Amino acid sequence: MRDAVARALAEDLGPLGDLTAMLVPDTEVARAQVESRAEGVLAGRLCALEAFAQVDASLVVDFKVSDGAWLAPGSVVAEVSGSMRSILTAERTALNFLCHLSGVATVARRYVDAVCAVNPATRVLDTRKTTPGLRALEKAAVRAGGAWNHRAGLSDAVLVKDNHLGSVTIGDAVATARRWWPGRMVEVECDHPEQVADAVAAGASAVLLDNMTPSLVSECVALVRARAAEGGGTVLVEVSAGVTLDTAPAYAAAGADLDSVGAITHSAPILDLGLDLVED
Amino acid sequence: MRDAVARALAEDLGPLGDLTAMLVPDTEVARAQVESRAEGVLAGRLCALEAFAQVDASLVVDFKVSDGAWLAPGSVVAEVSGSMRSILTAERTALNFLCHLSGVATVARRYVDAVCAVNPATRVLDTRKTTPGLRALEKAAVRAGGAWNHRAGLSDAVLVKDNHLGSVTIGDAVATARRWWPGRMVEVECDHPEQVADAVAAGASAVLLDNMTPSLVSECVALVRARAAEGGGTVLVEVSAGVTLDTAPAYAAAGADLDSVGAITHSAPILDLGLDLVED
Amino acid sequence: MRDAVARALAEDLGPLGDLTAMLVPDTEVARAQVESRAEGVLAGRLCALEAFAQVDASLVVDFKVSDGAWLAPGSVVAEVSGSMRSILTAERTALNFLCHLSGVATVARRYVDAVCAVNPATRVLDTRKTTPGLRALEKAAVRAGGAWNHRAGLSDAVLVKDNHLGSVTIGDAVATARRWWPGRMVEVECDHPEQVADAVAAGASAVLLDNMTPSLVSECVALVRARAAEGGGTVLVEVSAGVTLDTAPAYAAAGADLDSVGAITHSAPILDLGLDLVED
Amino acid sequence: MRDAVARALAEDLGPLGDLTAMLVPDTEVARAQVESRAEGVLAGRLCALEAFAQVDASLVVDFKVSDGAWLAPGSVVAEVSGSMRSILTAERTALNFLCHLSGVATVARRYVDAVCAVNPATRVLDTRKTTPGLRALEKAAVRAGGAWNHRAGLSDAVLVKDNHLGSVTIGDAVATARRWWPGRMVEVECDHPEQVADAVAAGASAVLLDNMTPSLVSECVALVRARAAEGGGTVLVEVSAGVTLDTAPAYAAAGADLDSVGAITHSAPILDLGLDLVED
Amino acid sequence: MRDAVARALAEDLGPLGDLTAMLVPDTEVARAQVESRAEGVLAGRLCALEAFAQVDASLVVDFKVSDGAWLAPGSVVAEVSGSMRSILTAERTALNFLCHLSGVATVARRYVDAVCAVNPATRVLDTRKTTPGLRALEKAAVRAGGAWNHRAGLSDAVLVKDNHLGSVTIGDAVATARRWWPGRMVEVECDHPEQVADAVAAGASAVLLDNMTPSLVSECVALVRARAAEGGGTVLVEVSAGVTLDTAPAYAAAGADLDSVGAITHSAPILDLGLDLVED
Amino acid sequence: MRDAVARALAEDLGPLGDLTAMLVPDTEVARAQVESRAEGVLAGRLCALEAFAQVDASLVVDFKVSDGAWLAPGSVVAEVSGSMRSILTAERTALNFLCHLSGVATVARRYVDAVCAVNPATRVLDTRKTTPGLRALEKAAVRAGGAWNHRAGLSDAVLVKDNHLGSVTIGDAVATARRWWPGRMVEVECDHPEQVADAVAAGASAVLLDNMTPSLVSECVALVRARAAEGGGTVLVEVSAGVTLDTAPAYAAAGADLDSVGAITHSAPILDLGLDLVED
Repeated sequence: MRDAVARALAEDLGPLGDLTAMLVPDTEVARAQVESRAEGVLAGRLCALEAFAQVDASLVVDFKVSDGAWLAPGSVVAEVSGSMRSILTAERTALNFLCHLSGVATVARRYVDAVCAVNPATRVLDTRKTTPGLRALEKAAVRAGGAWNHRAGLSDAVLVKDNHLGSVTIGDAVATARRWWPGRMVEVECDHPEQVADAVAAGASAVLLDNMTPSLVSECVALVRARAAEGGGTVLVEVSAGVTLDTAPAYAAAGADLDSVGAITHSAPILDLGLDLVED
Repeated sequence: MRDAVARALAEDLGPLGDLTAMLVPDTEVARAQVESRAEGVLAGRLCALEAFAQVDASLVVDFKVSDGAWLAPGSVVAEVSGSMRSILTAERTALNFLCHLSGVATVARRYVDAVCAVNPATRVLDTRKTTPGLRALEKAAVRAGGAWNHRAGLSDAVLVKDNHLGSVTIGDAVATARRWWPGRMVEVECDHPEQVADAVAAGASAVLLDNMTPSLVSECVALVRARAAEGGGTVLVEVSAGVTLDTAPAYAAAGADLDSVGAITHSAPILDLGLDLVED
Repeated sequence: MRDAVARALAEDLGPLGDLTAMLVPDTEVARAQVESRAEGVLAGRLCALEAFAQVDASLVVDFKVSDGAWLAPGSVVAEVSGSMRSILTAERTALNFLCHLSGVATVARRYVDAVCAVNPATRVLDTRKTTPGLRALEKAAVRAGGAWNHRAGLSDAVLVKDNHLGSVTIGDAVATARRWWPGRMVEVECDHPEQVADAVAAGASAVLLDNMTPSLVSECVALVRARAAEGGGTVLVEVSAGVTLDTAPAYAAAGADLDSVGAITHSAPILDLGLDLVED
Repeated sequence: MRDAVARALAEDLGPLGDLTAMLVPDTEVARAQVESRAEGVLAGRLCALEAFAQVDASLVVDFKVSDGAWLAPGSVVAEVSGSMRSILTAERTALNFLCHLSGVATVARRYVDAVCAVNPATRVLDTRKTTPGLRALEKAAVRAGGAWNHRAGLSDAVLVKDNHLGSVTIGDAVATARRWWPGRMVEVECDHPEQVADAVAAGASAVLLDNMTPSLVSECVALVRARAAEGGGTVLVEVSAGVTLDTAPAYAAAGADLDSVGAITHSAPILDLGLDLVED
Repeated sequence: MRDAVARALAEDLGPLGDLTAMLVPDTEVARAQVESRAEGVLAGRLCALEAFAQVDASLVVDFKVSDGAWLAPGSVVAEVSGSMRSILTAERTALNFLCHLSGVATVARRYVDAVCAVNPATRVLDTRKTTPGLRALEKAAVRAGGAWNHRAGLSDAVLVKDNHLGSVTIGDAVATARRWWPGRMVEVECDHPEQVADAVAAGASAVLLDNMTPSLVSECVALVRARAAEGGGTVLVEVSAGVTLDTAPAYAAAGADLDSVGAITHSAPILDLGLDLVED
Repeated sequence: MRDAVARALAEDLGPLGDLTAMLVPDTEVARAQVESRAEGVLAGRLCALEAFAQVDASLVVDFKVSDGAWLAPGSVVAEVSGSMRSILTAERTALNFLCHLSGVATVARRYVDAVCAVNPATRVLDTRKTTPGLRALEKAAVRAGGAWNHRAGLSDAVLVKDNHLGSVTIGDAVATARRWWPGRMVEVECDHPEQVADAVAAGASAVLLDNMTPSLVSECVALVRARAAEGGGTVLVEVSAGVTLDTAPAYAAAGADLDSVGAITHSAPILDLGLDLVED
């Protein structure tokens, strides 16, 4: 996180620093508030703290709320006091993190709300479709929004997709993965119920139902639960692809354990937060 | 760019690499196509090339179109051939760059189209509200979309905002900036026409009209043009803040030279691009 | 890997480069062989290639065997030809990687052989007790030696240890972990059979039997298998701590699925490999 | 050192951080002790302090002993208090440094003890056969163990080996090195006494007797001392290669000034240290 | 700046640290003064503070003067107290920054003094001819010396040189640059008055008169001022190339707005500063 | 070296790249020559090659001379051909390295010539007073100029200065250093002949005569040679501090083995080299 903030500051400060702030006397002090200008969920508090601290360790930054808090328009998120120059210089970088990550948390919360109203047992997940360089921060923002994390990357779970299945059968892929990577999740992407049956029979931990209709999802859920009842252990059912805020409830109603939604991280608009100086 | 790609690959590959790709025989070769699944503008070609090359320098990647090209759903963007494992491992990182940056280019193009239909002389600009760590890449995507770049950061132009004007007058700020930073743009954010008059009188290169109505913008444009006609040199008129895809045309019609739009970079949804294996 | 090699070269070359190699005329060419001077398993081929290439991209390096190959004393591992200066300068860094990683692979192989002779179903695993900075490379060397990888770090699986159990019960810990981290391995470290029963009942994916005697392990294995037969899904039994090359077979005989051995990575002596110039 | 610790933490924490520690309430505080579980020499104190500090600057870490201290099984090395989550998260990284570096110090001490018992004037040295990326830390651990450092890398001394002598004579190599690198050590690796005579005559600072028997070493020592007595200045006699803990005393008895031992750094098993929570 | 200091310390400390300082007892404390041994302008204060802090955060460093201060021989610049070892270890790195950057500031001041005596309206500028890796620090030192910064790099202004003019006309280049990079300085390098006329007509912000005699500069200044009086806005006149401390006044007298001088950064000798221990 | 070039390019290219080069059609190709505009010694060839290659690997760069070559005004140093844009973008970074490092080499050569004319046995050395971040490159340039390198940093030799001698005697310092750092140079800075006598008696490898007159240096040289003749081995005599191009010959005549000159690296003006396009 420290490195991500340092990179963001470097790209904003450039080689000469903040030309405009130099016009303000360097003894000038100020107090400012970070406020929400829309409603949503806060995330990125640590990044904002780090941005202010890297610019000027003597700034006092007091967050009024924590990541995961629901913000109304006008909610005061934090108060910053100290050198006016430093506040103005750090402002944009701190806000860029807060606005982007709060945007992710807010979209996550919207999906969670839509899904839980229908089926509280369904968990909303993120995907690997994250903004390059920000995966860890976005995955933390997803949790702040009340959703959960799918695998963090290619090395922490096995997910056999149709592109892999041109070269190996589901049975062989699952068996090999089980042997090579003891204990890890082995999931199989399925386009139709026969593949689901194969995956469960092979001992997969989860099936990813890709682009299926809710009714086909229901059918697959029933199939998986029946197998589990016969003693095969828990197999998680994940849906993806066709999942938007409109369609998510129907998939939840179909009984999926997990709804994974790329849009939470790849297409979240920012949550609008601003910084204003406070007159004393 | 090389570093941004390396970081993105590192966060996806993790410490053990692609567990699933190891299930595919390492001698397997494949051919794949990157296709657009929606309409929009391509950006990020160099990042995608770099991602494939960093995973496996022997992959052959052939882009069919350049950054800035308009894509229809189904347009073939690139063809990749070589080791199946390598293609599958690089896929998500390459797509994350392409989809994000093409999303930025696409939103930029939408604003450009909306504005130019009304006033071809108005140029759409980005802002410093970029995704942390991706400023240079997003600013290039903005250009691919046909819009232009505002300052790259705090060190390449002077932009006096209301927060600065608590400590200095417009006249002093512009005069000092002109002396200290010869040749650089000195812009002043204005909330009402009197400030515009002051800024022009002080010799600013540009005024940024913040949160004004289109009719107030018209008034300010007239004021600026009149002063220029009296021999003060060109002063650019920029509008911002109230600018959305719906309101942008009205501001363009009001005669602004520049429309700066934070949403191009901070809230662009991805352009959906996918990679599919091709049967020979 | 590129970075690890670059760091190693930087620490060897220092600010002035190889003072001694400068005594050799820079036109001198040579041919050299990397040979094993003991028996063991090769690992680190890619690191050695990278080291030679970073010193001098024009060196021709031809590996005769792959990672995982069994080497006898005198086995020729690779042939290097090109600038004598470059070969001598790269020699130590290339060998330091090869010797260390082959040492890890060799110890891994010894444990695999000892365990499989008794119980081919037991898999030998590494741990997080790796040499700082070399985890990914050592985990690859473990696989080259025929053993498998436990979790790569703290973020890819849940492993509840006795230190955690001061604050939460096994039941709560497993339930929370299952909800928060869908699909991931949730393992519980157990000191006695009652904890094993609790962990299995709570739905853990695996139990880690710490410092138990082989007979106690047998008892726990029986307990776990009985529960699984009642429909609870597969639960893996892992043993650790008391595991040395002498004791490993007894634990394998006790029926453990997994034997995790810190010594593979934290105490492996090098495999002795050397580089000699070849007279033509 | 800061970078080495940051890298080690990054490879352990991964993109999501410590999943298991999140199960512990974040307000929970604890006190823990780092204890030795075997006998040996402590090294790596600064790395452990840095690891705890990088995870959580508010942890209080109190080392009871310094690098170089002799530890018995059960010796309390340090006490750590503060957030339970932070202690558990930092534990493995701190221990990996302490155990590895203390292992190096312990082997160094064993060689020093074995050699000094026979010849207190003989100094034990390390070599460039260090673990990639850890040279500086291992060389400090060697000093903590009571042994001394040979050159740190290729750029701080000249060591002419047989591979170099295919292209230049001993006389020319030493003369050139003396001219080019004023003041630096110029050492020549010798396989037989005639080379020793040449090296001393040429003005080498040291000779490295490679793979000689102790009696041949005695002969070379006598030769070197005789020359020195004739006015050639001090020439150090170093032995290597055949040096193990068993053979080291014989070489020391033969009168070598320096015994260099690769095994101190390349094959040291860890010193077993553990961290346990303390009940108050 | 932190990174530049860390790199400089790393190259000085090397893998083993300060061998000589280890000869001083580690409990020894000392007080030292940094003094000027020649007259000139101070710059680099923050770098020196950072160097001492990175070596030992407990050192107390008290600067008596700020960047930009004029120093006489014997002026006390700073006082450092704390661990003797740490002071001695940090000394050279801190001084290397102070001496180099103060050297740059001193040469800048000399040019400013020479130019302002003749024409107070002429501002002295630096160039991109900076020492690799130190541009931002040297540009800050230039300001400390009372001169100003030309563009920081290739991405913050357009400067059309004769090499570019082989492919485009001045008119097209300026028009395109104006459209693509709204608000930025667009400068044209001119070898003779006709080019100056073209550049002004095309709307350039500045002209760079390269290798002209002062009388030719006078002619171009008159030409530019005449055009500006006709309503073309301010155009800055910059001179370069033939500018040395001897010739600068003549160019200033010729009426140039800007004198850019590569020698300020590329050929500044150090300002001699030293550190001495103070007896108490 | 790769990193130093990458940093220099990053600071020049900035976030948007070369704005001006974008005005040149991207298909335009060109041929250019790097020429010397003054007389001096070339250094930095590899840095320039790296700079051109990092900007555009397809540029063909053909150096006509090697580091160490003597250049007259007008000497063609290299020819570059390929994309005009790439040549113009890389030009300044490549030249900044070449000009700075050739400047160092040129000053080194001047000192070598001045000294050797008087006493061919005296070798000119650099110091640790190098430009921060460029030590390795400057030390290579020193060798290109025909002078030699003193220690590269604090960790490769012991140099006891008067600041150290407040806490230890010369005798103790040398004895301890000899024991701790076998084989390394142990040098003692001396202000008067008694210290020289002490240092030689203690077994120092070299004495550094600080701020002595040439006649005092002669006296010390005689003293050192006398001791050596009595069997103490070679002790090198180094002079420094009062050494300028004017005074260096007198010190050489006084018989010093080594003249160390900080000005070679800390105050070398650039050697003026330029790049010009060539008409075909």
